[in-house]
Amino acid sequence: MKTLPDFDMVLFGGTGDLAMRKLLPALYQQVRAGTVPQGSRILAAARKPLSREAFLELAETTCRPFLGADYDADTWRAFAARISYFPMDVQAGASYGALGAALGLHPDRVRVFYYSTSPDFFATISDHLGAAGLITEASRVVVEKPLGHDLDSSREINDAVGRHFAERQIFRIDHYLGKEPVQNLLALRFGNVLFEPMWRREWVQDVQITVAEQLGVEGRGDFYEGTGALRDMLQNHLLQLLCIVAMEPPPSSDPDAVRDEKLKVLRSLKPFTPADVAARTVRGQYKAGAVAGAPVAGYVEEPGVAPGSRTETFVAVKAEIETWRWAGVPFFLRTGKRMPEKLAEIVINFRQVPHAIFGEATQGTRSNRLIIRMQPDESMRLHLVAKQPGDAMALHPVHLNLDFSESFRARRLEAYERLLMDAIRGRLTLFVRRDEQEAAWRWVEPILESWAASEDRPKAYTAGSWGPAASSALLSRDGLAWNEED
Amino acid sequence: MKTLPDFDMVLFGGTGDLAMRKLLPALYQQVRAGTVPQGSRILAAARKPLSREAFLELAETTCRPFLGADYDADTWRAFAARISYFPMDVQAGASYGALGAALGLHPDRVRVFYYSTSPDFFATISDHLGAAGLITEASRVVVEKPLGHDLDSSREINDAVGRHFAERQIFRIDHYLGKEPVQNLLALRFGNVLFEPMWRREWVQDVQITVAEQLGVEGRGDFYEGTGALRDMLQNHLLQLLCIVAMEPPPSSDPDAVRDEKLKVLRSLKPFTPADVAARTVRGQYKAGAVAGAPVAGYVEEPGVAPGSRTETFVAVKAEIETWRWAGVPFFLRTGKRMPEKLAEIVINFRQVPHAIFGEATQGTRSNRLIIRMQPDESMRLHLVAKQPGDAMALHPVHLNLDFSESFRARRLEAYERLLMDAIRGRLTLFVRRDEQEAAWRWVEPILESWAASEDRPKAYTAGSWGPAASSALLSRDGLAWNEED
Repeated sequence: MKTLPDFDMVLFGGTGDLAMRKLLPALYQQVRAGTVPQGSRILAAARKPLSREAFLELAETTCRPFLGADYDADTWRAFAARISYFPMDVQAGASYGALGAALGLHPDRVRVFYYSTSPDFFATISDHLGAAGLITEASRVVVEKPLGHDLDSSREINDAVGRHFAERQIFRIDHYLGKEPVQNLLALRFGNVLFEPMWRREWVQDVQITVAEQLGVEGRGDFYEGTGALRDMLQNHLLQLLCIVAMEPPPSSDPDAVRDEKLKVLRSLKPFTPADVAARTVRGQYKAGAVAGAPVAGYVEEPGVAPGSRTETFVAVKAEIETWRWAGVPFFLRTGKRMPEKLAEIVINFRQVPHAIFGEATQGTRSNRLIIRMQPDESMRLHLVAKQPGDAMALHPVHLNLDFSESFRARRLEAYERLLMDAIRGRLTLFVRRDEQEAAWRWVEPILESWAASEDRPKAYTAGSWGPAASSALLSRDGLAWNEED
Repeated sequence: MKTLPDFDMVLFGGTGDLAMRKLLPALYQQVRAGTVPQGSRILAAARKPLSREAFLELAETTCRPFLGADYDADTWRAFAARISYFPMDVQAGASYGALGAALGLHPDRVRVFYYSTSPDFFATISDHLGAAGLITEASRVVVEKPLGHDLDSSREINDAVGRHFAERQIFRIDHYLGKEPVQNLLALRFGNVLFEPMWRREWVQDVQITVAEQLGVEGRGDFYEGTGALRDMLQNHLLQLLCIVAMEPPPSSDPDAVRDEKLKVLRSLKPFTPADVAARTVRGQYKAGAVAGAPVAGYVEEPGVAPGSRTETFVAVKAEIETWRWAGVPFFLRTGKRMPEKLAEIVINFRQVPHAIFGEATQGTRSNRLIIRMQPDESMRLHLVAKQPGDAMALHPVHLNLDFSESFRARRLEAYERLLMDAIRGRLTLFVRRDEQEAAWRWVEPILESWAASEDRPKAYTAGSWGPAASSALLSRDGLAWNEED
């Protein structure tokens, strides 16, 4: 891997979950890989009044389990030597003095501000950074979901950050875009001639995108009450994956070339009328059940959740893309908590062969499928039909691994590691542009409004099931079913 | 595998190479697999005045090395119990009495006459079988190449056999059609939706079919002098493989549905004008050299070869198929003796991606290829381009095994085993119909005539090379090259 440019990275929320579980481990891995130049620095900022030593001890203790066999004491020391800690109140302008002094005057040096705090602070932090003159031409800001809870609030956040950073400096992370299988999908589609011509309504029957969690709300019921599965997962992660699957080949891999194509997909999504919402969406809420063999409480029994809560913990949507390429091909999206497995996958179901010349030999075989899996393992599999060796023309389903991890010896990267490096290098391709984000909000808003206006409650589903029966019915009406094999 | 119907198989030329190396081992394997009913019989006929015991001893000694670990004494005894031997002069009508008595009157019993003799005897044997009343409704005849040395002589043979057997009773073997990878190719093309739409001029750049032998003429110089590579290999095996690759999807897998499509391909081959022959064909003749590290003589030094012989031991042809599907896509065919390797393969070269969005990352990668190999090993491989795991979008060539032998535990069949079973069952799909054979002759005749009329000699190539340089030039004029990897 190539060395990164010299950089300073400021982690707001430096003692938080994201910093400890993802960001610091990702930076450690880069130090270990030897790509971080000597002079580069990590400046963690958070409210906790810790000494540098206490912060480093906390970081080492917390990160170590996430590093597994990649942890070693020497590398950690080299990593820790680059870290400083700033206990500060991000809402108080005076707090930024020490940070500014530490950053110094380096107009050409890459400066990454990572806002791993509540979005409530994004405006304040940006204002204070701007007022303190800490935002240089070479500065970037990385922001995390939730970026608003509807179109208006997302605009407010974007406006507030945008007052101090140009769009080319704003890196909106969607970590699903950083996952290796998503990269492989792009390579498969645009590096080979064999798939792209098939990647259209003539040959694709339907597309299914599933992001299922086994977890419940994990004590964050008060946050989740105002969010729900549609805002928390579908509006961002699932729609971004849909864009990667559905976009036209971009003219180049330049950030805006790719993001222009994704935006076109979002703008081509068939809008929801209130009648559509009833017919093409399903919302669910888990009740008590069992996950992985252990009994779990229902959503309304979780702390912080209102007794009559109508917040959805599951959503399934039938999306349609109004373009020549995709007209009539349903894209089914579903995401939920307390599902039977942790599973994130994209399934491209190709059509049946138009005419089966082998007659009964083909019976019982399914059509070709491409399955891109991001959770629990990362893989890409092509399901075909092949002849069983021997006398008869007996056809059987087989699958091919298109992951090629065995063909290559290179280390796989965690999504955050890839995205942090891209932010440091200024590569925007895998980050979400403002207009994409807003187009996604625009598409989901009628669903939110229709649900809010309706007397209906989310349909109950037992924790540990695949959501309410209406989710299966959404597909069976088209003669289809959610992918279940494998 | 399903049990075969009761049958009697008469092997003319029963002590010959083909019977001993291929046919008897194939029948042994079927006995071993338990598919041969108790009452079925193998009646070997040949000139050698041997007792049944002496024939069986000869057969066991000769076949055993071809059976390898599949030989065991008990199975051989069960196999031998079904064999009788008829020393006879096939040209003398009186010889057929004993055979007739042994066959008896079983109008419904499958009766397979396998002519593994010189084609010079096909007419005589057919006439005598007819005169002796041995050809029943349930009779079939299996014939082997060479079926003539041009269109007229092939017609003569077909007429002679056709006087006694209906076309549906005539099984013209081309053992390349019985090979597992050829069957796999059919399953891949017509059992999946993913390949057929790509199988056309829009996406295929060129097709290459190679059948290379390391052997020379092996003491059969006098036979080979009147034959040459075009008649011996290209007119039959290579053109049959071309048909399998190029044919339109047949409406069913019924024999005539498949053979109609193959015939359409043969009739769509662009005919050769004399100028075409010079531009689109290359003939070669090996001179002394080395194969597999050992020195070998040149063709004209072989016993039975005339000193100034103009017989070609190598031929390469650029074929074109004048259809909507294939217009402009060259099909390069080559076959030769004394090549560096024993190799039989079909290569489908797909076009480059029309536009490379990843820029330099794609450099050095080749376009997608499907390689169907019949010799020295049987395999089917798809060459793709994939992303190397890690940070950058670095694309590298990889390949997928589409053979699936690991997915299945079934035993693989030798081509002759499959084809003998098909003959016994009356399945004509993998056998060549008369009109196909004659269309193939019609297409190659102008080449033969033009060569015969020309003052030119075949171009010399060193034994152990891939033929004369003109063979490479045939492709390089189109900016292409013979497949060399792997």
